Amino acid sequence: MLAEPHFKRRPCVWKMLMAAMCVALLSGLQAQDLPRQVSIILLGATGDLARKYLWQGLFHLYLEEVGKGHHFRFHGTALTSTEQGQEVIAKVLESLSCPGDMASGHCAELKAQFQQLSEYRQLKTPEDYVALSKDIEAQVEHEGLRETGRIFYLSVPPFAYVDIARNINSSCRPGPGAWLRVVLEKPFGHDLHSAQQLATELGSFFQEEEMYRVDHYLGKQVVAQILPFRDQNRAALDGLWNRHHVERVEIVMKETLDAEGRTSFYEEYGVIRDVLQNHLTEVLTLVAMELPVNVSSPESVLQHKLQAFQALRSLQRHSAVLGQYQAYSGQVRRELQKPDSFHSLTPTFAGILVHIDNLRWEGVPFILMSGKALDERVSYVRILFKNQAFCVQSEKHWVAAQSHCLPRQIIFYIGHGELGSPAVLVSRNLFQPALPSASWKEVEGRPGLHLFGLPLSDYYAYSPVREQDAYSLLISHIFHCRKDSFVTTENLLASWVFWTPLLDSLAHEVPRFYPGGAENGQLLDFEFSGGHLSFSQPLPEQLVPGPDSAPLPSDFQVLRAKYRESPLISAWPEELIARLAGDIEAAAVRAVRRFGKFHLALSGGSSPVALFQQLATGHYSFPWAHTHLWLVDERCVPLWDPESNFQGLQTHLLQHVRVPHYNVHPMPVHRRQRLCAEEDQGAQAYAEEISALVTNGSFDLVLLGMGTDGHTASLFPQSPAGLDGEQLVVLTTSPSSPHRRMSLSLPLINRARKVAVLVMGRMKREIAMLVSRVGRDPKKWPISGVLPDSGQLVWYMDYDAFLG
Amino acid sequence: MLAEPHFKRRPCVWKMLMAAMCVALLSGLQAQDLPRQVSIILLGATGDLARKYLWQGLFHLYLEEVGKGHHFRFHGTALTSTEQGQEVIAKVLESLSCPGDMASGHCAELKAQFQQLSEYRQLKTPEDYVALSKDIEAQVEHEGLRETGRIFYLSVPPFAYVDIARNINSSCRPGPGAWLRVVLEKPFGHDLHSAQQLATELGSFFQEEEMYRVDHYLGKQVVAQILPFRDQNRAALDGLWNRHHVERVEIVMKETLDAEGRTSFYEEYGVIRDVLQNHLTEVLTLVAMELPVNVSSPESVLQHKLQAFQALRSLQRHSAVLGQYQAYSGQVRRELQKPDSFHSLTPTFAGILVHIDNLRWEGVPFILMSGKALDERVSYVRILFKNQAFCVQSEKHWVAAQSHCLPRQIIFYIGHGELGSPAVLVSRNLFQPALPSASWKEVEGRPGLHLFGLPLSDYYAYSPVREQDAYSLLISHIFHCRKDSFVTTENLLASWVFWTPLLDSLAHEVPRFYPGGAENGQLLDFEFSGGHLSFSQPLPEQLVPGPDSAPLPSDFQVLRAKYRESPLISAWPEELIARLAGDIEAAAVRAVRRFGKFHLALSGGSSPVALFQQLATGHYSFPWAHTHLWLVDERCVPLWDPESNFQGLQTHLLQHVRVPHYNVHPMPVHRRQRLCAEEDQGAQAYAEEISALVTNGSFDLVLLGMGTDGHTASLFPQSPAGLDGEQLVVLTTSPSSPHRRMSLSLPLINRARKVAVLVMGRMKREIAMLVSRVGRDPKKWPISGVLPDSGQLVWYMDYDAFLG
Repeated sequence: MLAEPHFKRRPCVWKMLMAAMCVALLSGLQAQDLPRQVSIILLGATGDLARKYLWQGLFHLYLEEVGKGHHFRFHGTALTSTEQGQEVIAKVLESLSCPGDMASGHCAELKAQFQQLSEYRQLKTPEDYVALSKDIEAQVEHEGLRETGRIFYLSVPPFAYVDIARNINSSCRPGPGAWLRVVLEKPFGHDLHSAQQLATELGSFFQEEEMYRVDHYLGKQVVAQILPFRDQNRAALDGLWNRHHVERVEIVMKETLDAEGRTSFYEEYGVIRDVLQNHLTEVLTLVAMELPVNVSSPESVLQHKLQAFQALRSLQRHSAVLGQYQAYSGQVRRELQKPDSFHSLTPTFAGILVHIDNLRWEGVPFILMSGKALDERVSYVRILFKNQAFCVQSEKHWVAAQSHCLPRQIIFYIGHGELGSPAVLVSRNLFQPALPSASWKEVEGRPGLHLFGLPLSDYYAYSPVREQDAYSLLISHIFHCRKDSFVTTENLLASWVFWTPLLDSLAHEVPRFYPGGAENGQLLDFEFSGGHLSFSQPLPEQLVPGPDSAPLPSDFQVLRAKYRESPLISAWPEELIARLAGDIEAAAVRAVRRFGKFHLALSGGSSPVALFQQLATGHYSFPWAHTHLWLVDERCVPLWDPESNFQGLQTHLLQHVRVPHYNVHPMPVHRRQRLCAEEDQGAQAYAEEISALVTNGSFDLVLLGMGTDGHTASLFPQSPAGLDGEQLVVLTTSPSSPHRRMSLSLPLINRARKVAVLVMGRMKREIAMLVSRVGRDPKKWPISGVLPDSGQLVWYMDYDAFLG
Repeated sequence: MLAEPHFKRRPCVWKMLMAAMCVALLSGLQAQDLPRQVSIILLGATGDLARKYLWQGLFHLYLEEVGKGHHFRFHGTALTSTEQGQEVIAKVLESLSCPGDMASGHCAELKAQFQQLSEYRQLKTPEDYVALSKDIEAQVEHEGLRETGRIFYLSVPPFAYVDIARNINSSCRPGPGAWLRVVLEKPFGHDLHSAQQLATELGSFFQEEEMYRVDHYLGKQVVAQILPFRDQNRAALDGLWNRHHVERVEIVMKETLDAEGRTSFYEEYGVIRDVLQNHLTEVLTLVAMELPVNVSSPESVLQHKLQAFQALRSLQRHSAVLGQYQAYSGQVRRELQKPDSFHSLTPTFAGILVHIDNLRWEGVPFILMSGKALDERVSYVRILFKNQAFCVQSEKHWVAAQSHCLPRQIIFYIGHGELGSPAVLVSRNLFQPALPSASWKEVEGRPGLHLFGLPLSDYYAYSPVREQDAYSLLISHIFHCRKDSFVTTENLLASWVFWTPLLDSLAHEVPRFYPGGAENGQLLDFEFSGGHLSFSQPLPEQLVPGPDSAPLPSDFQVLRAKYRESPLISAWPEELIARLAGDIEAAAVRAVRRFGKFHLALSGGSSPVALFQQLATGHYSFPWAHTHLWLVDERCVPLWDPESNFQGLQTHLLQHVRVPHYNVHPMPVHRRQRLCAEEDQGAQAYAEEISALVTNGSFDLVLLGMGTDGHTASLFPQSPAGLDGEQLVVLTTSPSSPHRRMSLSLPLINRARKVAVLVMGRMKREIAMLVSRVGRDPKKWPISGVLPDSGQLVWYMDYDAFLG
């Protein structure tokens, strides 16, 4: 019987089979049958969090587990002196409460037992840790128990982690056969770098399976129900939970409070680090991840969650809108003694658009939003389904709960708001959900209450039979090693990998200022279009001056001039790319009309990426089905290498348009498992392919770049290959790695009907200046040899490259 | 001055430059300056359409053109005797009306002129045609005019077309230098075949540019405004008019009337031929087509329209829902003297889901709907935009006309309905549209009127300053050779190519019966999912018995048995394909987990198409990025040939999933511009590719089929190649064309970890029976040689093939 709680719960079976400590435990089961004890050490036991939630959570654990085979001891510790601490703890223990349905006599009895098993002690010096460990061992031995494990719950500021961790590791590990679990509270770093650093430090003291990082959102009853709900309603959701049916997902946490009194913390973190990077991102992965076959396997859940992270599309500067309530800077000045001239840029409101690049979610907007000083306090996840119905009768005949033309949605109502309690809501025109009837009950009718466009009566609505605090649930999960309710190092770092670039790029952004509360009106409403977020309303008068904004592309006209006696088009980058993409499309349409096909040879590198993206998303009538894509040059790496030019083309263009497979012509740099071996004749093969398909070897358009050394394609200065002669395709050597390259030759390039040279960025300014003055000298500046025999040459340079 | 009307209107410039007649006209301008005359001959001049619309349209043309350089003569003709006809026409001419803003005296004067220029004559025999032509010539000469052209407007039933056309062609062509225009009224055939036949017949008498096929919908003011609207609002629409922003397009024509009194026509046509194939399809192309740079070039418009047709995804049986109002069959029995047992299957209601396979519209549902005996009479096109806004405040704070969270839509309100007049509506939260202010005015407020979920005041709403009948507009367009307002032969046939397969497949479908009017309730509401349409409500009790329905797949379990001592899975086709797709995905996931990649070899042919579609749309977590696709066999045709197995794979699978380019391995049947030449060593090259990438040449899964002669892959009976020996890939000969093939060899197939054989359809029953009994004899039945050395063989047969 003693072993049962462990074997009943798969997660523990899994963990036990994995971790060394569990092997010892298993052998222990055969060898010794002494009653077992778990010690729980709560560090920061006199702090806010502990007093408000953690002691109650420990008591809840005790109530749940008492009589199931484990003995417990609870050690509250802090830096506080013993006497003071004992006083605080005594008060806290007195105020503990039992569940509403427990008889008061029974409650008093258990509470007295719990108080007796709990103590306060100061834990400050290394010696204190040694003493603690010794005391536990002595007590266990004295009582004829066997120690099963120790839980250290660190409810302390992060700067204290490392010292504590070192002490636990060196002095407080339980003896062989017993486990150690260390519970950590956020923040877990400030960005990827600091999170990595902290993870490395902690990793030097603890095994991954010993660490339990708390995100208390994962302990909220409705959040914890997301995966079980998806699992228990698989049949109904299977066909619905994907891009064909989901219109959007909203993950929202709105607060009415502001940051007053907490600005010293808030100034450093802001809303994204405080709420989005952790809570809302965790919820996002629960909604988006592929559902494991077995949702009660923590291993599977964590693995699928990690995969969800990996499918997140990188955030861009334009994936976010930021706001700050007007009173914030004043509060910061007061609380942090800043001068009157100080203006904070810390956002207190953020809307973020997340896209997930997999087949299930491609194109479905996931909107994350959180803010302080808003009009209501509420947290929810809303999955809105597409309206895929057509109602034949005119609207006045529609019947609410049946009509498929009315909103269909599932809402995980995490808490607060007009409903006032956690709940799971499913529109009645969707399906009747299954929820475990022992723990979830139907919500009672509330006439007049509308949620998300529908009266409450239009939903199947369930709330927990007994509301439970997040920490109670999490403490129980720590005890039962349900690792999937916690943040693993891998997942933590994956989240920071996702958020850090955005945080960096927003660091100097001026947020939109809002008055707070219902007065915000529509000031913070935002909308998305093609991956970009923006506020719906134009900016009202700035309330606080921000840094001067740079001139916008639209402030300037596109400039037309001559460069090396050929036409030059110059503009700001965005404008320039749009113009080049338009010109390529025009050339394509012309060629397809005349010849039935369009032969386009593209260069690799970073400049064309924006062009590829522009072509992929903005050009609906581009004749891709009749376009042949060729490479101007290639690095001698396998095509799937991230350094391969082809790989860039594939990622940024091919995946988004429909070019027939046989119209795509990667350079054969990788033949017979070898890279650019002369004897494999890759260059000859490419030349033959060109000769076979491209009339006279005249590409309709060749896109080139220009290197800071004047190279173009993979034709380099002082290296004769490909600069003249008969060869169409050549192997060349680059001064920079990877050195070996394949390239179209200059004579072949010059046969093209049109050659476009794209030059962007300040780094190109010098060479652009130089090349503007030199004559034709391809051995020194290969780019100077580009001059189509009978075709047209056009230079596309951004202002940075051209004007500097 | 005389030439001005021609040169001012680009369409005519275009036509003039193109058509021979125009050359003559141009030269005429230089040579002779006689006043010009146009003769308009209205055939069927005493019929319903002529009396109601066409005479009025001719009068309208006269009012428009009088004094602009042309003389006119109008000849009403019919089979009716001269006396009777004259009587009818006199009445019609008397009832003609002028525009409301014309002074009545001026109107009377012009009307009298028009009456004088109009005559009635019987047109029955070939001699009548000769006489008509002579009379015109004589009159022209007598009056010292030069004949510019003749318009023959055929308002007659289609069976009369060919005779009339022959007579016009042989006896009524104007002399050299003058043009001929022949106007045709629908129906233009009943399906592709009959339309082609009619087109061929007419084509033997007239040039394409001489024919004007009328679809009167193109003359409706709002329909005619669609392209100009798109053109004049380019700036606002450019970013919106695509799949990223459009949620759906509804093209609707609802009628309250039923078919009583017209069942003899209706029984033959039904709602799809009567309304959808022509009117709604024309409107569809106007909305969907790429906007020409110059929308007033009929040539460009027609060409872009044709391209829109070509991008339409083929309709399937499940693209439609059909209904019939309950009284219909009774009406047919009464009007057509059918027995009491007669039940018509003709649909009087249809909802159709159209998808457009191009980058602009991919995934956007276009819903076409029309029906008789519905709750209201109204026609409209509704473009509903996606809701891409997030409103931060709770709903109660939203402000109607500004909030971007409320519906955003553009409605081309063609007519009738609650608004009662044609109009163009644009939600105020979208943009303020530009419409030509001379001809469009703002609609006056109508408090209380709601349209498409919004009060009228939430729209910018414009209606024509002067409502004009469709025929008046079209007659004017005929005169000005605005060919884009008419249906060209190419476009007509393209439309039939699109609709005919659906009509064929629906021919024996029992429509859902509906009571008619508001009582229809939600009975006809329908919804779409993954390209399929279905009624939202389950079928109520059948009101009229239809043919017995076949058992549904879900009535049967999947059957598991043995076949040739290997596992057999049998089911109805849909179930079988779902099962096979699931098994393939499971194999893929397993292989990728173990080896990091999945090598899948696929057969061509028709059976796998459904499998490809299932894999493309239903399997979100298929590890495509790690899957290598190989061909089991290939026909010696270029890869882009429709007969190529690879082409099928590309169309049905590759275009919809993301397999990296270099993981796709088409068979090299086409090398050096030759097909399967031995000396090009394609088979050897493929074998080398396999050896290089597939460990031991063991594919993870090989999908095979079985021919009625027992062949599999491209290994045929009595042809030894590939049945044994060392060769991995072989060239073989098929008994059916194209004869030359490339195929994996049997020994290579048998190295696979898993081989799945998919056998479907009644035609396979005999061979399935036979092969179940024979031993291993690959020379006679190659399929009998399939038995993996150490892998698994599974047969997937549908019930038709297995049970017959």
